[in-house]
Amino acid sequence: MKLRYGIILTVLLLMLGTTAYAFPEAVENVSENAEVLIQTNGNEYTSMEDFEASTDYIIFTVNNLWILIAAFMVLMMHLGFATVESGLTQAKNAVNVIYKNVFILTVGILLYALVGFQIMYPGDFNGFLGFGGFGIGFDPSNLVGMLTPAYGLDMTIWTDFIFQAMFAATAATIVSGCVTGRIKLPAFMIFGVLLLAFCYPVTGSWHWGGGWLSELGFYDFAGSTLVHAVGGAAGLACVLLLGPRSGKYEGGKIHGIPAHNIPLATVGVFILFLGWFGFNGGSVLNADPVGVSYVFVTTALAACSGAIAAMVTTQIVMKTLDAPMALNGILAGLVGITAGADAVGIMDAVFIGAIAGVIVVFSILMFDKLKIDDPVGAISVHGVVGIWGTIAVGIFSPDVSFGVQVLGTLSIAAFTFVFSLAVFGAIKAIMGVRVSKEVESDGLDISEHGSHAYPEFSPVKTSELGAFAD
Amino acid sequence: MKLRYGIILTVLLLMLGTTAYAFPEAVENVSENAEVLIQTNGNEYTSMEDFEASTDYIIFTVNNLWILIAAFMVLMMHLGFATVESGLTQAKNAVNVIYKNVFILTVGILLYALVGFQIMYPGDFNGFLGFGGFGIGFDPSNLVGMLTPAYGLDMTIWTDFIFQAMFAATAATIVSGCVTGRIKLPAFMIFGVLLLAFCYPVTGSWHWGGGWLSELGFYDFAGSTLVHAVGGAAGLACVLLLGPRSGKYEGGKIHGIPAHNIPLATVGVFILFLGWFGFNGGSVLNADPVGVSYVFVTTALAACSGAIAAMVTTQIVMKTLDAPMALNGILAGLVGITAGADAVGIMDAVFIGAIAGVIVVFSILMFDKLKIDDPVGAISVHGVVGIWGTIAVGIFSPDVSFGVQVLGTLSIAAFTFVFSLAVFGAIKAIMGVRVSKEVESDGLDISEHGSHAYPEFSPVKTSELGAFAD
Amino acid sequence: MKLRYGIILTVLLLMLGTTAYAFPEAVENVSENAEVLIQTNGNEYTSMEDFEASTDYIIFTVNNLWILIAAFMVLMMHLGFATVESGLTQAKNAVNVIYKNVFILTVGILLYALVGFQIMYPGDFNGFLGFGGFGIGFDPSNLVGMLTPAYGLDMTIWTDFIFQAMFAATAATIVSGCVTGRIKLPAFMIFGVLLLAFCYPVTGSWHWGGGWLSELGFYDFAGSTLVHAVGGAAGLACVLLLGPRSGKYEGGKIHGIPAHNIPLATVGVFILFLGWFGFNGGSVLNADPVGVSYVFVTTALAACSGAIAAMVTTQIVMKTLDAPMALNGILAGLVGITAGADAVGIMDAVFIGAIAGVIVVFSILMFDKLKIDDPVGAISVHGVVGIWGTIAVGIFSPDVSFGVQVLGTLSIAAFTFVFSLAVFGAIKAIMGVRVSKEVESDGLDISEHGSHAYPEFSPVKTSELGAFAD
Repeated sequence: MKLRYGIILTVLLLMLGTTAYAFPEAVENVSENAEVLIQTNGNEYTSMEDFEASTDYIIFTVNNLWILIAAFMVLMMHLGFATVESGLTQAKNAVNVIYKNVFILTVGILLYALVGFQIMYPGDFNGFLGFGGFGIGFDPSNLVGMLTPAYGLDMTIWTDFIFQAMFAATAATIVSGCVTGRIKLPAFMIFGVLLLAFCYPVTGSWHWGGGWLSELGFYDFAGSTLVHAVGGAAGLACVLLLGPRSGKYEGGKIHGIPAHNIPLATVGVFILFLGWFGFNGGSVLNADPVGVSYVFVTTALAACSGAIAAMVTTQIVMKTLDAPMALNGILAGLVGITAGADAVGIMDAVFIGAIAGVIVVFSILMFDKLKIDDPVGAISVHGVVGIWGTIAVGIFSPDVSFGVQVLGTLSIAAFTFVFSLAVFGAIKAIMGVRVSKEVESDGLDISEHGSHAYPEFSPVKTSELGAFAD
Repeated sequence: MKLRYGIILTVLLLMLGTTAYAFPEAVENVSENAEVLIQTNGNEYTSMEDFEASTDYIIFTVNNLWILIAAFMVLMMHLGFATVESGLTQAKNAVNVIYKNVFILTVGILLYALVGFQIMYPGDFNGFLGFGGFGIGFDPSNLVGMLTPAYGLDMTIWTDFIFQAMFAATAATIVSGCVTGRIKLPAFMIFGVLLLAFCYPVTGSWHWGGGWLSELGFYDFAGSTLVHAVGGAAGLACVLLLGPRSGKYEGGKIHGIPAHNIPLATVGVFILFLGWFGFNGGSVLNADPVGVSYVFVTTALAACSGAIAAMVTTQIVMKTLDAPMALNGILAGLVGITAGADAVGIMDAVFIGAIAGVIVVFSILMFDKLKIDDPVGAISVHGVVGIWGTIAVGIFSPDVSFGVQVLGTLSIAAFTFVFSLAVFGAIKAIMGVRVSKEVESDGLDISEHGSHAYPEFSPVKTSELGAFAD
Repeated sequence: MKLRYGIILTVLLLMLGTTAYAFPEAVENVSENAEVLIQTNGNEYTSMEDFEASTDYIIFTVNNLWILIAAFMVLMMHLGFATVESGLTQAKNAVNVIYKNVFILTVGILLYALVGFQIMYPGDFNGFLGFGGFGIGFDPSNLVGMLTPAYGLDMTIWTDFIFQAMFAATAATIVSGCVTGRIKLPAFMIFGVLLLAFCYPVTGSWHWGGGWLSELGFYDFAGSTLVHAVGGAAGLACVLLLGPRSGKYEGGKIHGIPAHNIPLATVGVFILFLGWFGFNGGSVLNADPVGVSYVFVTTALAACSGAIAAMVTTQIVMKTLDAPMALNGILAGLVGITAGADAVGIMDAVFIGAIAGVIVVFSILMFDKLKIDDPVGAISVHGVVGIWGTIAVGIFSPDVSFGVQVLGTLSIAAFTFVFSLAVFGAIKAIMGVRVSKEVESDGLDISEHGSHAYPEFSPVKTSELGAFAD
């Protein structure tokens, strides 16, 4: 069975390599350009020399630099996901979580270069599905392509690509958290690749690519729906097909499986908090002083009120000062404000974050009552709160339609959910998606990766460490 | 008793919400402005359009962007504090440390938005105490407010706020490290809130807000005194009222309680080192090339000489190559250079950092001899070295008065110490500040939070893990 | 014996202090300048006022700011090295790894300020070895020195210094990983100091300092050879003189010594990935939009293809999904692209990274077969792949000579290897380089530092934790 993984990976790599080399014009660098036309800031330049001599070029440089730094911050979030997900699960599955996240991040960026970028931002688009061609895609004979004024952006196409690519991998990483502890690695790999190569860029194109939702006036600033609800909806579909971890709901009771490393999970949440300033701040798409600073403030305040609200709610409902819930409150505040970070008032941001912090606690408890086992709470944090955040823009911003927000977030969540049910269902039928009871009991680390996350600390004998560690 | 926490938190949240919503004009966003007047760089603009068309606007954008990135770096320091403090304490209290830090960071930023910012930077000020009103506070009919040329700053008021808010939470976080392992959570919460809502912005206003110390010519560039000595002085007051951890000084001897996770503490110190480039570099308050780069160099060199000096001192005095002491040497160098990072010579910076590295070792040993139990050494690192750093500017910079430096740092430290003694003393009298012997022995994680930081690793039975782990 | 460490450190510190204070003119700050001449962007300014009033000054500010942020990112890599190296080794040596890394980073930056910077970038240079004098070195009577247009750089000399200093410490940190678990701390300290004070800046001057390799047309954009192959070659020399860890190759078999903390190592690799955007992106030496964004894309894609290729190769060759190998694949992709990040095509970057990912797996296996014990795989990741990355520029870029690339990378690797053999051999002859069997068996943490990385977790009795932990 292990051989299968190698074959899958090899095929993927060959596919990537051959396809991309077959379309060299789309991905080659350009140094000399036959034709030059740059439109920016209301001015037009017919040569790179003229452009570089203008103050528009300085503005372009500053805007471009900020988006590159924001891309760096969004990559930081992938370290956040890797640590929060491994910290919140069991030690016997920590290596597996990390391996999944490394795979999905790296294959996700490669896939986005190969197909995703040009599905999501097609040149020629019918509103539901378009494809601009393989590769990163610009016309090397024309600087217009390179500097993307076609989208009215003050950044190079490389900057645009790398920023969007860092976003793309996020959705599948959210799924990784939900399915942890019992999914077959190749099943996750195949599902993640299909989600990233097709589903994410298609629903993304509906709004950010200029598609039908964008035309209806749907508003999702940085992706409460397009990134987070997509991840949550896909995660829910997978969890429904996968079932809960063994023993989690045995005998009709909920058996808590505690986080194995709270400091590690804390590192993850703080890093996600940090990275979110790039996720939201970079979504301004330039360095406009009022725009970016305003988004920093709404993002920070929503995260803070989310944490405090989750602390209060947990204390009242669960009669405990649960640290993971406080951490999830930060994340909920951040997911909640993502759709409207630039469109709602400062106090609205505090309020949206606080409600997100309340929702996330009840949502996590509800899914547990429904016996839907989400080890890290990602369906609640990203899915449920993502939908809340999107709808909240319709409530708090006078310029945005409540109805369109509901329609938009539910359309995208539903499409993703159905896509995921179909694809993950097919994988289940063909090759199975769940590891055996023994593998699950021993832990995926030793079974699938032949190693322990912490081999020197007892209990190293994973057979002694069942699902009932508390 | 647990219910009390919920009540405290709920009251806090309601207070925040209602107060802020009662002053909507102070915290609402502004899109249209009746009156427009922008003064920057010696020029004056009467409309936003004129301003945006000028090269002054580009400079404004660059300066503003740097301070936003610096704010991001200072937030990073809170991850540093959370990890260094939990790493340096016992495993049985790691969750509690994290919970405290999440609380103080998030409530701190909210409080700073509500009252702190306008106490610290009052429009109308008598030199000792002023208050500009609730909320972030700008006049929406006037861009002057939004772009803060009132303070001569090239940044939006949102940028100014978020940068200052990230600083504010730092002071209380320092206290968190000192009191770890035996403080009642609600006692810490109430004290932290009062320190942040009142004490920190008041002493801050004396210098950075344009108050009496500023008029005397006191110099504290980025807060050796205003942030670090404040945190250290408050921590010392709390520790005196709280007493040492059980068993620490039993039988007249000092029983070392070793750090439970050195790699975690190392992560914290490196992240603090990183974040300090935002703390000091951002305190230039613009992106001036010579100014910011010079501060980067003095900051880095002082951190390095602090580490080497602490290594040497530890080796000579303690006859050991103690890793936590080396790490504290980095922090000492950083705290030491913070007051004069832009005002002293390059070699002076090396020297100030080296002396800080020597001081911190002797200070930590001295407090232990005095039976003042500071689990992470924060009183020494931030308090004692913060005072050294402030006085050092008076020694090394010809433009700064030695006497005023001594007066300033001692005034602020003394005010904070007395305030903290009074407030924490009152909390002690009313509700008690110290957990019971059983709770302390079991660890605060299981007693207060119902969870372990690392539930899967033995010894999970906290009863076996007393104060004498080494 | 312990006293010796203190003496070494004291001598170092005194040397630093006295030498630098003996050359105050080289390291003092400058506020007033008698003579002012600034050349930038084709224009010339005779006063700072004129310069600051120009748009050239804004460009200068933006470029300078980016390099400062890049320096911050490269410092981040030192956190990455500390965590990946301690995570991949045994728990009983984790504190020692951290101590070594803190020492080498801090002493490295101080040494670079004292001598390294002016060996590497000498004003007066004969192509093989030059020295501009002690200290950071600028002429305070002339802004030319401060703003370094002598090098045609749009940054202050402080920015130039801090960016280069962060690079310098990297090479010795790579060695730290190779020799972990059995090296005497003073032997490492002395070797590291000599490597950083002399060897690294001399070979660096051959190319980046304008020396003979630069004149031949050698191309090493950000240091596949100048930083990484140097670290790898020095590490190999040390490992050959040091021998393998006890028991590693006992009885003619290879006994794997597993990483003690995979999540910690993962944190390290992700942080290195993040920091590499500063390492490569900053090496553009300005904020040119096309230049920096292009480097971000090639860097990211090479890291991703390196990871996927290492995953596939590991699966095929080792029949396992080894997480540390996947992580090493990311690093290999990054090291591989470092020499040509701005000079090769987008798909070439994917290809260079993928080959690096394949090479690193075989190289790690090969060194194990040769009984060359490199606990973290650094000789392969940095040395072997660094050479591959350098040669790859000669293959993929039409403007770069294959022969010169081979000559350059082998010259520098050979010089470093011979220098390291000689110096480390001399240290071995004089004072010994290897700890005793007992110290190695007990772990360096308890023997050299008197502490455990995780004292509360069993097995704390290091005597039970031999080399055969799995």
